[in-house]
Amino acid sequence: MDETALIERYLRDLGAPRADVTLGIGDDAAIVRADPESELVLTTDALLEGVHFLPGAPARSLGHRAMAVNLSDVAAMGAEPTWALLSLNLPAADESWLREFAEGFGAIARAQGVALIGGNLARGALSITVQLTGQAPRGQALRRDGARPGDGLFVSGCVGDAAAGVQLLFAERDGRPINLDREAAQYLRARFEYPSARTALGLALRGLASACIDVSDGLYVDASRLLRASQCAARLDIASLPLSPALRRWQGGNAWQGGLAGGEDYELCFTAPAAHWDAIDVAARRTGQPVTRIGTVEAGDGLTLESAGAVIRFSPSGWDHFGR
Amino acid sequence: MDETALIERYLRDLGAPRADVTLGIGDDAAIVRADPESELVLTTDALLEGVHFLPGAPARSLGHRAMAVNLSDVAAMGAEPTWALLSLNLPAADESWLREFAEGFGAIARAQGVALIGGNLARGALSITVQLTGQAPRGQALRRDGARPGDGLFVSGCVGDAAAGVQLLFAERDGRPINLDREAAQYLRARFEYPSARTALGLALRGLASACIDVSDGLYVDASRLLRASQCAARLDIASLPLSPALRRWQGGNAWQGGLAGGEDYELCFTAPAAHWDAIDVAARRTGQPVTRIGTVEAGDGLTLESAGAVIRFSPSGWDHFGR
Repeated sequence: MDETALIERYLRDLGAPRADVTLGIGDDAAIVRADPESELVLTTDALLEGVHFLPGAPARSLGHRAMAVNLSDVAAMGAEPTWALLSLNLPAADESWLREFAEGFGAIARAQGVALIGGNLARGALSITVQLTGQAPRGQALRRDGARPGDGLFVSGCVGDAAAGVQLLFAERDGRPINLDREAAQYLRARFEYPSARTALGLALRGLASACIDVSDGLYVDASRLLRASQCAARLDIASLPLSPALRRWQGGNAWQGGLAGGEDYELCFTAPAAHWDAIDVAARRTGQPVTRIGTVEAGDGLTLESAGAVIRFSPSGWDHFGR
Repeated sequence: MDETALIERYLRDLGAPRADVTLGIGDDAAIVRADPESELVLTTDALLEGVHFLPGAPARSLGHRAMAVNLSDVAAMGAEPTWALLSLNLPAADESWLREFAEGFGAIARAQGVALIGGNLARGALSITVQLTGQAPRGQALRRDGARPGDGLFVSGCVGDAAAGVQLLFAERDGRPINLDREAAQYLRARFEYPSARTALGLALRGLASACIDVSDGLYVDASRLLRASQCAARLDIASLPLSPALRRWQGGNAWQGGLAGGEDYELCFTAPAAHWDAIDVAARRTGQPVTRIGTVEAGDGLTLESAGAVIRFSPSGWDHFGR
């Protein structure tokens, strides 16, 4: 089966139907109509075998994640996701793989109202590149550079779970014993293989958050990026980190390090002035996407960690007590 | 140097500056403002090592081609190209490769007014995926499905050159003698490594062409796709095919087959009613992108080839005289 036939069978009509799509898959390019009152938000992100997933990873998870990592970028902009393009490099035309991939990709795309409007299939080392466009009312998209001293520093959901899920997958691959109950292990693994995208929360944060970033490389790294873009510092009490019971059972007293170093969380890290904190609580309850205030923005630069009043030094590849 | 630093050094500010880009590379996503009177046209296309280019291909050519193949899709829609996203998988952080790639990519992007608004860099088998957005006034984008019986069938430029250029590259790699003058060989090779995108012609064809497709898989295959989408047939006289002097010198009496089978031409194949033919001639002269009328659209299906009044049977992988 050639590229056109495979695209026809597995990728056409995969996403949500949208009235603003004039012409979808099948021409030289798709045609869509943007909302004239909105700005467009565009992102692209790729998953590569051996880099972002292990060989043999379930195709359904890859379809889900390829979409979710892009949805997360659009959520961090406070935009509504609308149209996706998929560029798939496959070593062989494996139809059962494609079917499962399409199921994972299609389920989350439809759930979030995203139309798949274009696709490209080529034979090569397995990699999946998605380009996603979203829309936000003019001037209202969230950016990284708006944090101000006095703002609260927040994060959604729990951090560190997905990275723990990866540790479990490696242990399983290598046949190492896993000293954790089955339910907790399944939860952590699912947090890596089927991350949520905090789209509803991102939309609710428009007009409330002063800056926002998605947590893809770990909370410490991504919060530091937000602060650098905003030319601010922040202070974070590690006791306030939202850590799941499963992560605490797996990593015990070191779970806070897993939460900070993490990676692949796809939560939102954002800042907001105190006048908006109550409204943020309401938004979190309404969307069912809980948030935790983990620190305070200050003048200066860098992210300072505290524990019981003492400063902790930490880097994603290790940490040591700094004291003072 | 990490992904962020490499993107900062080689990819930021690579394309054309555009007033409609609110926020470029460096946040979770870019923010742009669409023209409220226009529709958006979106495409994505990828180049993979070993599939679309030989190992060791010049990085400058790859940068140019990655952009050109997407520009060609947008040109075939009669749209103005505006914003690009680049997803680059590289086996290693080779800075001299990146510099040359960026030069090739940037030169054609700037020449065509395209801003590079987002990038993604990952370590993996060399592949280059570009997503390009363009704009056309509402309802005026060109599609494949508008050809009608009586329309003329046209193609821009010359066909078959790029595929001949690939033959020469293979011959060179394998150390086979090339029986062709140096100037012709350089021309054919450049037509593969540095294809033009017929953007100005595509824009000029709005309101004149009834259907349009870009010639990426060979004129015969792509014209057949246009006819299938339009539910029409066409008749083409092989004596009318636009073939370059270099191609004729290289392939002699078989050059017409090279022109039909081709591939990687990135010319436009389009149809238009007779009332528009004079205006198309004017548009071709004005844009400096010549076009040739090569046939006539008819009721029915399929592309029929004729030579001196006799029907020729041809498939991209061979041909035989059919007679009648």
